[in-house]
Amino acid sequence: MSTNILKGKRGIIFGALNEQSIAWKVAERAHEEGATFVLTNAPIAMRMGEINKLAETTGSQIIPADATSVEDLENLISQSMEILGGKIDFILHSIGMSINVRKGRHYTDQKYDFTHKGLDVSALSFHKVMQTAMKQDAMSEWGSIVALTYIAAQRTFPDYNDMADNKSYLESIARSFGYHYGIAKKVRVNTISQSPTMTTAGSGVKGFNEFINYSDQMSPLGNADAKACADYCISMFSDLTRYVTMQNLFHDGGFSNTGVTQAVIEKFSD
Amino acid sequence: MSTNILKGKRGIIFGALNEQSIAWKVAERAHEEGATFVLTNAPIAMRMGEINKLAETTGSQIIPADATSVEDLENLISQSMEILGGKIDFILHSIGMSINVRKGRHYTDQKYDFTHKGLDVSALSFHKVMQTAMKQDAMSEWGSIVALTYIAAQRTFPDYNDMADNKSYLESIARSFGYHYGIAKKVRVNTISQSPTMTTAGSGVKGFNEFINYSDQMSPLGNADAKACADYCISMFSDLTRYVTMQNLFHDGGFSNTGVTQAVIEKFSD
Amino acid sequence: MSTNILKGKRGIIFGALNEQSIAWKVAERAHEEGATFVLTNAPIAMRMGEINKLAETTGSQIIPADATSVEDLENLISQSMEILGGKIDFILHSIGMSINVRKGRHYTDQKYDFTHKGLDVSALSFHKVMQTAMKQDAMSEWGSIVALTYIAAQRTFPDYNDMADNKSYLESIARSFGYHYGIAKKVRVNTISQSPTMTTAGSGVKGFNEFINYSDQMSPLGNADAKACADYCISMFSDLTRYVTMQNLFHDGGFSNTGVTQAVIEKFSD
Amino acid sequence: MSTNILKGKRGIIFGALNEQSIAWKVAERAHEEGATFVLTNAPIAMRMGEINKLAETTGSQIIPADATSVEDLENLISQSMEILGGKIDFILHSIGMSINVRKGRHYTDQKYDFTHKGLDVSALSFHKVMQTAMKQDAMSEWGSIVALTYIAAQRTFPDYNDMADNKSYLESIARSFGYHYGIAKKVRVNTISQSPTMTTAGSGVKGFNEFINYSDQMSPLGNADAKACADYCISMFSDLTRYVTMQNLFHDGGFSNTGVTQAVIEKFSD
Repeated sequence: MSTNILKGKRGIIFGALNEQSIAWKVAERAHEEGATFVLTNAPIAMRMGEINKLAETTGSQIIPADATSVEDLENLISQSMEILGGKIDFILHSIGMSINVRKGRHYTDQKYDFTHKGLDVSALSFHKVMQTAMKQDAMSEWGSIVALTYIAAQRTFPDYNDMADNKSYLESIARSFGYHYGIAKKVRVNTISQSPTMTTAGSGVKGFNEFINYSDQMSPLGNADAKACADYCISMFSDLTRYVTMQNLFHDGGFSNTGVTQAVIEKFSD
Repeated sequence: MSTNILKGKRGIIFGALNEQSIAWKVAERAHEEGATFVLTNAPIAMRMGEINKLAETTGSQIIPADATSVEDLENLISQSMEILGGKIDFILHSIGMSINVRKGRHYTDQKYDFTHKGLDVSALSFHKVMQTAMKQDAMSEWGSIVALTYIAAQRTFPDYNDMADNKSYLESIARSFGYHYGIAKKVRVNTISQSPTMTTAGSGVKGFNEFINYSDQMSPLGNADAKACADYCISMFSDLTRYVTMQNLFHDGGFSNTGVTQAVIEKFSD
Repeated sequence: MSTNILKGKRGIIFGALNEQSIAWKVAERAHEEGATFVLTNAPIAMRMGEINKLAETTGSQIIPADATSVEDLENLISQSMEILGGKIDFILHSIGMSINVRKGRHYTDQKYDFTHKGLDVSALSFHKVMQTAMKQDAMSEWGSIVALTYIAAQRTFPDYNDMADNKSYLESIARSFGYHYGIAKKVRVNTISQSPTMTTAGSGVKGFNEFINYSDQMSPLGNADAKACADYCISMFSDLTRYVTMQNLFHDGGFSNTGVTQAVIEKFSD
Repeated sequence: MSTNILKGKRGIIFGALNEQSIAWKVAERAHEEGATFVLTNAPIAMRMGEINKLAETTGSQIIPADATSVEDLENLISQSMEILGGKIDFILHSIGMSINVRKGRHYTDQKYDFTHKGLDVSALSFHKVMQTAMKQDAMSEWGSIVALTYIAAQRTFPDYNDMADNKSYLESIARSFGYHYGIAKKVRVNTISQSPTMTTAGSGVKGFNEFINYSDQMSPLGNADAKACADYCISMFSDLTRYVTMQNLFHDGGFSNTGVTQAVIEKFSD
């Protein structure tokens, strides 16, 4: 159901690991909609992933980059402009990882080196991408930059741990940088706050099934899946949404504004 | 544990029906803290209630008033100043009622006459109280006006019906009137968004027990009870909170910023 | 720059008065994007407007309807389905009017009959449209309903008067009805909170030029205009945004999340 | 106007530098209200400050601590319990500093070492204080922990730079840790979002006078000063506010919910 809504647009997509990844679906949809783009991921993630397959089906090149390394990002962005033949119209940031979570540290028992490292990967990388792009004057006017986030930035989900604080920081970067990029270059910056999604990252987390189930029953439309999230990203990259900036946009089937559903409340009768 | 924190302050308290009422607890606590005040309620509510007992124990007078009647409010406010011997320092608005709910109309099957009437009682009455007070120049400088509300103004709870919309309107009045009253007379206006509370109003609602139970398990400190809410009202009437205005203040044991608790998520394993 | 993104979709558009109207631009863009729709407005508004011209250029029929009259809405919706040949995929609600404003009543000197009437036109009409549509089972699955609103629902702008409270109520209806419509029929309901726009309604308001100017200087991308708002509505009617529901979406060039801009602060040096 | 509302309570107050400091005023007011407490600050800050004077007038001891050092915090908290003779009832965190700001780096030209260091001082220190307190089981049940913040966490103020992101992270910590501390020990955690205040930290910032002026004119009650903020902190440490947790509380004369004031809009006429 392509409408070529991104025809002629050039992008950079961070974070496609495998078919479950939201970034993977974004790449597929962006390709369908007429965009060209570069795929990128951390070298280590790429070894585990199947990104070459995606590159083939979408006719994309892959440039490995550690998103916490300004040097890597400089290379990524300058090469991307060369490969794509001009300035960048859209960027997707879909990166996140908490070492405290991986190492099984409770939120109230953090190792602060882990905390800093997780922030760097999950949030500060977003700033680094934009700062690097701005210094290279790499974005087109009215370009659109999107990072994926989760409602844990607003409300506490106990197992989300320090990723909640990272996502708050990430969303704040979107506002702060969106202000400066908007005034300087009419570039817009937003975050999309997505339903919990069964990706490789999620599927390893203890209790994730229960959590997905809960979220689904708390959402009037049910959880949004990765494909639907990709569609929403496409709309945010398109020219239909030029004056939306510095926003956190919930894409969650109504979860965020639902206090409780009938399906959930029924579990609380005696 | 009185500290006489409201010593010398004069108030008007709407909505004390019986010992379960939050307004009843506020009256008891305000009395303990050294305030004098007038009690008021709708004539019909007073017939059902035991407000005379409260008037005795707190040394207060009762002035019946239909809070949707500007005439009644004019009388209430001018008489209150006379009885209390000066301008008013605090007002509590604890009034709400949906006829659609009472008559069993679903939210998607409203009778709009009922909707208008419920809005008048639950929300517009708050504007009428303040407009009347302002016209009589009845509030002291730095006076404090509080209305009770519920988080259904932000998120949907299916059984809360059109009271959700009424509470949104009520909270908007607090902001709008708070702006004007702040500039004109340094009077502050806020709403307190309270945990669901087992009052006479609540106890009749189908499924209210399940709901209280759910809310309690979703609140890290548990549901706040009427007594604790009264304490919070006292702090908002005191001089400790002079620059807090136009706010909606959650008094809910953390419910509002909790995405899910461990206790709740456990109900979603298979 | 049509992409036929609404190809085959059927809609109802409320509130097109003249070329300045946002609803007018939405109609033009929806037509370009392949939708068919019915135009409607209050009989009295239609006499003043030029809606016939719009009907011609977009190949649409016009059905007059007072949006506060359930009877008129029943007729509108059933006729629309007949004319368009099937269920409705999108509805735009762009209706608002405060009689207190028109009559020059200050927010703290409201005439409450005016308040009720303004609420009925500006907010309750949105509920009536949806309740009527639901009773006729008139919406397609995944249909999209949008109402236009303004940030006065969250923050006080002194001249916006009781329209602020009406907009809060309107946004609450979007959440409340969005919940029920989502669960029942997978219909999504949202509000778009638009920059102040120089329409016929706005241009008559005292101080509106200063206000537009202020808002423009407080928005990193500048004020969004009616045409851009129409584009955003198109994205919300399209299949790219299926899991966005119960949201208030700011389309404002970043105004809502800007504390102050350099351009504004400069006016405050001595 | 003491009411002994904190009688018998024990606290730790971070961040009193000199008489302009909010923490200084909190110490004075807490002393008036019957609390005993320990004062602490970074060794380097103490050399510049006049904290000894405050210690004398309030009968307090001073324990220097670098709030980014877990070791220092362990010592501070265990010593404080010894000095005060029991568990801690309240903690004030009033610490913040951006090295990017100090070094004159623009938000879009950050040096990321500075960013990490600023985050550590301004935000992560709050987590460290609580994690350390929790490990020592140092807080009384219903104890109250407050950190000071600013609305830049929600909206962009261009000169606030990366402190905006730090404050977002700080507020997220309040929610995340508040969840866990509430469930484990009934300890509540909140942030107070204060008007811009003319402290030593603020007075050195370029354009701060214009900014204070703007904020004052955008607040219906005017800017809240340090003394009023101290009063509000007292209310949050008292037993009147036991069920308020995980909240960000605006203490700003209404700034946060004001879209514009008449005083401000008048600057935008031609």
